[in-house]
Amino acid sequence: MILKGTVVWAPEPARLEVSEASYLVADGAAVRGVYRELPAELAGEPVEDWGDALIVPAFVDAHVHAPQYLNAGIGMDEELLPWLERRTFPLEARFADAAFASRAYRAFLRELWRQGTLRFVAFGTVHAPATWELMRLADAAGFTALVGKVNMDRNAPASLAEDPARSLGETEELALRAREELAHVGFIATPRFVPSTTDRLMDGLGALVEKYGLPVQSHVDENRSEIELVASLHPKSESYAHVYEEHGLMPRARTILAHGVWLKPSEIDLLRRREVLVAHCPQSNANLTSGVMPLTRTLDAGVACAVASDVAGGSNLGLPAHMACAVRASKLRRVRDESERALGLAEALYLATKAPGSFAGFADPSGSFEPGYRADVLVIESARTRELDELLGRTPAERLERFVYSGESADIAARYAGGERMPEPFAQEGSGA
Amino acid sequence: MILKGTVVWAPEPARLEVSEASYLVADGAAVRGVYRELPAELAGEPVEDWGDALIVPAFVDAHVHAPQYLNAGIGMDEELLPWLERRTFPLEARFADAAFASRAYRAFLRELWRQGTLRFVAFGTVHAPATWELMRLADAAGFTALVGKVNMDRNAPASLAEDPARSLGETEELALRAREELAHVGFIATPRFVPSTTDRLMDGLGALVEKYGLPVQSHVDENRSEIELVASLHPKSESYAHVYEEHGLMPRARTILAHGVWLKPSEIDLLRRREVLVAHCPQSNANLTSGVMPLTRTLDAGVACAVASDVAGGSNLGLPAHMACAVRASKLRRVRDESERALGLAEALYLATKAPGSFAGFADPSGSFEPGYRADVLVIESARTRELDELLGRTPAERLERFVYSGESADIAARYAGGERMPEPFAQEGSGA
Repeated sequence: MILKGTVVWAPEPARLEVSEASYLVADGAAVRGVYRELPAELAGEPVEDWGDALIVPAFVDAHVHAPQYLNAGIGMDEELLPWLERRTFPLEARFADAAFASRAYRAFLRELWRQGTLRFVAFGTVHAPATWELMRLADAAGFTALVGKVNMDRNAPASLAEDPARSLGETEELALRAREELAHVGFIATPRFVPSTTDRLMDGLGALVEKYGLPVQSHVDENRSEIELVASLHPKSESYAHVYEEHGLMPRARTILAHGVWLKPSEIDLLRRREVLVAHCPQSNANLTSGVMPLTRTLDAGVACAVASDVAGGSNLGLPAHMACAVRASKLRRVRDESERALGLAEALYLATKAPGSFAGFADPSGSFEPGYRADVLVIESARTRELDELLGRTPAERLERFVYSGESADIAARYAGGERMPEPFAQEGSGA
Repeated sequence: MILKGTVVWAPEPARLEVSEASYLVADGAAVRGVYRELPAELAGEPVEDWGDALIVPAFVDAHVHAPQYLNAGIGMDEELLPWLERRTFPLEARFADAAFASRAYRAFLRELWRQGTLRFVAFGTVHAPATWELMRLADAAGFTALVGKVNMDRNAPASLAEDPARSLGETEELALRAREELAHVGFIATPRFVPSTTDRLMDGLGALVEKYGLPVQSHVDENRSEIELVASLHPKSESYAHVYEEHGLMPRARTILAHGVWLKPSEIDLLRRREVLVAHCPQSNANLTSGVMPLTRTLDAGVACAVASDVAGGSNLGLPAHMACAVRASKLRRVRDESERALGLAEALYLATKAPGSFAGFADPSGSFEPGYRADVLVIESARTRELDELLGRTPAERLERFVYSGESADIAARYAGGERMPEPFAQEGSGA
């Protein structure tokens, strides 16, 4: 793959690398480099010339509930608990129906593609066949992903509550099957969150995590009533986050915890030591009246973070909306306390590309154009403003910023996954989701 | 005009009216009514049947800086003052060039149309010819609008600072010319904000407001340093808002003030008494680190409010993004104080349609489907989710909510202004903005 255009990426949190009229070259699935002039040995190779369009890393969503895509943007007048009971659980229960699940997950993957997210870490439901279908479909369509069957055996509606032994058996089976049959999609252990999982289930999952070296995803410190509930369920644990660690569910550098709105100092220490990736979901945290996470404080305390959609707590699968939300959320914290710094554009891009893309649970890193990174790429071009951009001499950074704040999926002219042009998934099946 | 579909509108703040398989009928430019069965005397009239697509009032933007559209989504890493100096003022200075202004305003109007905003209240620049061009273009394209030439004669860069006598003369001339030559676009007096306008200029404008019965738009209480500046400039005034009243710039029911993030109780009293419409711009207030306005408190205190874009403080011309932002902002206030109620979907729709559309500065009301309201209409249909919507039995309110939270302009299938299908403005000139 050789693409020519205005190549922009964020190799470090606060640094936007811009290389105009340059070539992004991949050898197979991996980036070889970005060149102002094509290396001599590549002369004569076919080049896709995108003019001055932006060539950026594809987005990586570190936290998304795939089944809930069907509820994205619906039920937002309800608060967290009624929303879970009236919206989320009834929808997830429908994934017992494999045909329904297959249709729903095709729609989810098609929309991810449309929005430029080519790598993701997703919750499925408790249903192993439906979760396998998501894994299989994502792999076939060309995404790289980590997907987990949800485990939950307490505080769940009857339609979703699991027997812990069976839950563990199905989990192990899926993890092994993914390893054997799939090229680009791996399994991630997925206890829903502490209130949904008994000690027995968490211990069993922890044993699987150790046995197979699995990564783990869950939730932590999303809202205050949830934190009180966890404290009442685990009175001997130092904190919510410590419960995961105590059950072997915080493997070093292979754990993603969503939210962290209300992390205590001892939890920040723990997450830093265990190299946990915190998936910051600012739009969801506002939608569900959870709060505003101190993102820049948490980053500056040495905890790795990413910006994620948390659909359907978040309403948009597209990550630009969440990047803009993360910037705004950081500014609203700054209104109240000037010692908190605002997030900038370059860092927002980093948090939606390299930070989640280089999560060690993946087989290879993505989200940057450094050599060896997976060549997942978007070409961004807004025809609507081309003439005025030229008149005003817009810089590449300005054009990227405008795409993040006010672009639309139609501005994504092309997508490449692992160095190959990625067609719309399941397009031959027609537009019916 | 007779449209058939799923008709949805918000005649009151907390009430969504839904009429499925119904007819929206207009006589000329005005709504006649919504009917489950077509009145007998209309039998045989041509009906445009949109199936079960949503038929909703077009959006109304009560506060937008038309020239700044070119900066939408750019420069957001900067705080208010450097942003004004580095981004806003240099761009506005270019509107001295009439050819530039014409191109820019065509792009602005085209994007408004794309996003479904068919009525607006806009700041131009200090330049009378450019502002006239905006008024003329908007009128010709079929929008209804109130547009003002900006007045500013202090704290302005040399390129934009005006001589007060000349500023007043040009203002009067434009107001008269609009009255004589334009059918649907009126003039609105537009002192930029207190820090930009001397007492002399404000007094002169106040006299024009009284003489011609002009409406007024300006800004109030956006951020704390601005408020301190106003207090130092007008130490004898009771508040920022009172300065406008003292200069005759708060005509009853014909005044729009943007922001009101930090209104004092005495200002809330004043705004209620003068029936001021407060344009709430939550996205802009976050983008510029201004704060979170207590929207529901202000509404419940009896002050009329609308949700507005404030482009380019806001990054999107489309109002759905701002409606969602307004809901989220109200929820973030609720996190800190449970006595503040969250904004709901129906009220968010009301605040982006009927509340600004029925501002008395307009010749006729819009934003609702009650008889006599101007028939400005959007048809909304998302092909992407049609099959799953049917499978899940989505209600019209759910489909509307999803459009607000995660729709795109491509989901707007048709626009009608004053009872007539509205084509893309200036489309014959090609796509080049």
